[in-house]
Formats: sequence, structure tokens, C-alpha cells
Amino acid sequence: MHTTEFDTSLPSIRQLQNLVKQTAVVEFKLITGDLLTGRVLWQDPQCVCITDENSQQTTIWKQAIAYIKPKAS
Amino acid sequence: MHTTEFDTSLPSIRQLQNLVKQTAVVEFKLITGDLLTGRVLWQDPQCVCITDENSQQTTIWKQAIAYIKPKAS
Amino acid sequence: MHTTEFDTSLPSIRQLQNLVKQTAVVEFKLITGDLLTGRVLWQDPQCVCITDENSQQTTIWKQAIAYIKPKAS
Amino acid sequence: MHTTEFDTSLPSIRQLQNLVKQTAVVEFKLITGDLLTGRVLWQDPQCVCITDENSQQTTIWKQAIAYIKPKAS
Amino acid sequence: MHTTEFDTSLPSIRQLQNLVKQTAVVEFKLITGDLLTGRVLWQDPQCVCITDENSQQTTIWKQAIAYIKPKAS
Amino acid sequence: MHTTEFDTSLPSIRQLQNLVKQTAVVEFKLITGDLLTGRVLWQDPQCVCITDENSQQTTIWKQAIAYIKPKAS
Repeated sequence: MHTTEFDTSLPSIRQLQNLVKQTAVVEFKLITGDLLTGRVLWQDPQCVCITDENSQQTTIWKQAIAYIKPKAS
Repeated sequence: MHTTEFDTSLPSIRQLQNLVKQTAVVEFKLITGDLLTGRVLWQDPQCVCITDENSQQTTIWKQAIAYIKPKAS
Repeated sequence: MHTTEFDTSLPSIRQLQNLVKQTAVVEFKLITGDLLTGRVLWQDPQCVCITDENSQQTTIWKQAIAYIKPKAS
Repeated sequence: MHTTEFDTSLPSIRQLQNLVKQTAVVEFKLITGDLLTGRVLWQDPQCVCITDENSQQTTIWKQAIAYIKPKAS
Repeated sequence: MHTTEFDTSLPSIRQLQNLVKQTAVVEFKLITGDLLTGRVLWQDPQCVCITDENSQQTTIWKQAIAYIKPKAS
Repeated sequence: MHTTEFDTSLPSIRQLQNLVKQTAVVEFKLITGDLLTGRVLWQDPQCVCITDENSQQTTIWKQAIAYIKPKAS
């Protein structure tokens, strides 16, 4: 088994970790053009899992993210 | 021969493994815009294989996945 | 010279090898939206080569594959 | 923990660092076709974070950048 | 300086080398949807350079290739 | 700090270096479909920087290049 590299000192990794802690609502724009909105449950090196108002979970592949935008609270 | 790295401790890998065990129906949104739905038969580091109601198998390249969504049961 | 890694124990690699042996007709959906159909002649770590009914060969870059679907026989 | 490689001697990395220092307005064209404009707050190996006139932050995945253009001042 | 890996034993690399030797006309379908046609002058790990009837050279990034098709002679 | 690999013996790297020296006008077709034209100022492993007639600089991410075409002089 291989332990995948995950550098928690990187600002972009920490930003996502903070969004998990804050249970903030975040917009994810994907390279497909899809715009997904939800609270971030977890991230790993490959994916980010979000949940919407109906507790429907969606696992986003990081390779498909164009940008993310925390929604103003 | 080379044994490809596959970190089964990652949440996103384990989520897919759980979906295999649960024989859950999952939606795959691809970067092509295609939306494929089926039960997950297996994954490896490169692909995820699903089967639909007619037992037609489709092997999805992970590089093409934008997001996945387990369907509400 | 470098010998490229190619893990023949992976299900997705073996599936393609089996499709070569079976001379099965396979659909390839590419991230361009193209749908190519043919029998698989060979694969290597970078490409999959298929041939159509007129013996026209096409070499598909794996990086462009969204999914593959063996056609029902 | 793994420290991600980040070569600050590269012109393209330094260019972004300079744009941070200059608080210059920069256009980002993404492979989605989106055109985002803002001042660069930080970069790391994975992302670039910008802020617009309303202090709305957007974290752009570098994998999604097609080109950047500093706006004429 | 780093010498980039280039495995000339791979069928897909050799196929391109043979197309160079044969000065064969080849169609390149790119992930942009562009279809470029020309004779292959050289390849390296990153690119393939072709020339058209007017001796106009185009350097194609391999990352953008969806498939290639030698034209019937 | 990490020194990024950059193999100046590759034809495609040298071609870009020559285009810098010649201050040649080059067309860049991107995977977004954008067609950018300009003289090449510099390249590094990640980007190519061009300048247009109005001295407007644009930094193109190599990951987004489909092909390049030196313009006939």
C-alpha cells in the first residue's frame, strides 16, 4: 500500500480544510461548466466531497475543478 | 512488471469500494458532459467499471470523471 | 532508454488485453465527444489501436478516453 | 507530510509572485472559457487565489488556466 | 539538464517513428475538435511536428491528441 | 527549493527557443479554442510568454496548448 502525498502546509489545501471546519457554503465551478454548491465534508488528494441542503452528497474529482468560491455569508 | 500505487486508506477510494459492496446505484458525471448511471463492479487506479440494468458493462476512465453522486435509495 | 511501466495485473489493463484476444467489437467514447467503434489490435501505456470493418486503423490516445463499452454480441 | 515542489526560480512562478507584490489586476482565461479578473493574493503549486473589487475571493486551480494577462494600468 | 524518458519499444512510439520513415499522410484529431492532416517530420516526448502540402509546419502537443489515423494510400 | 526538469535537447523545447531568438510571429491554438498570435519572449517548463503588437504580454500555460504554428514570413 502506498500513502498518497498530501501537503497540509499548502494554502489551497488549508483553505479547503478551513472550509470544512467552518461548514461554509462553497461554489465549485467544474471544467464541464457545472456549478455545484454545498458544504465541504472532506477532501483527500483526489476528491472533495460536498453535501447540499437535502443532504445529498457529491464527490467531486479535483482534476475537474476550475475554481472555487466561498459564498458570502 | 510494475505494481501500481493504490491507496486504500483514502476516503475517495474507500467510498468507491463501499459503493461496490453496497451494490449502490451511482451517477457518474463525465467531463464530456455524459451522465452514466449504474452499479459499481470494480475500480482500479485507472478505471471504474459499472453495469446497468441490462447488464451492459461500461469501463469509465477516472481521468474523465467530474463528479459522482450515489442515488438516493 | 526507459521501459515504461505497464501493470498487467490491473483489471482495466487485463480487460483491454481480453478484448484483444476475443477480437471483440468495442465502443470508445472520447472526451472530444467522438464515438469510435472497432476491434482492439493492441494497447500500450499510451495508446489503444483499433481497426474498423474496412481495416482502417485508428490509434487512440488513452488520455482522451472517457469510457469504453464492449458491444453486445 | 510531504513538502510539495515549488520552483521559485521559474519565470512563470516569479511572474505570479511579482503580480502579488504589485497588486496588479490580472485576467485569467480558464479552459472552461471563463474569464476571471482580479488581484492575485497568493499562489501555491496547485492554485492561485484572486480577489475582485468586492473582496470576493476565488481560488483558481492552476490545472484549469489557459492563459493569464496582466491588465494595462 | 534532464534527459526525458522516451521508450522507443512502445508500439505507439514506434508507429509514429514508422510514419516518419514512410512520410505517410496522417490525420490528427485533437481534443479541441481540430482535424490536422500532414506528414510527420519528428516526434519527441512532448510533441509531434507535421508539415502540410505547402510546407507549413505545425507542432502538435501530444497532450492534445485524441487519435491519429494514417490515411489510406 | 526544487529545480524543475527542462530538457533543452528536445526538439520541441529547442524549437521554442529558436522562435525566441528569431523573434518570429507564432500562432498558438489552445484547447479552449482560443487562437493567440505573438512573438515568444520566454518559455519555462510550465508556460510560454508571448507579446503582441501593442506590447501586451500573455502567459500561456503549456497544458493548454493544442498546437503552435510559426507564421510564414
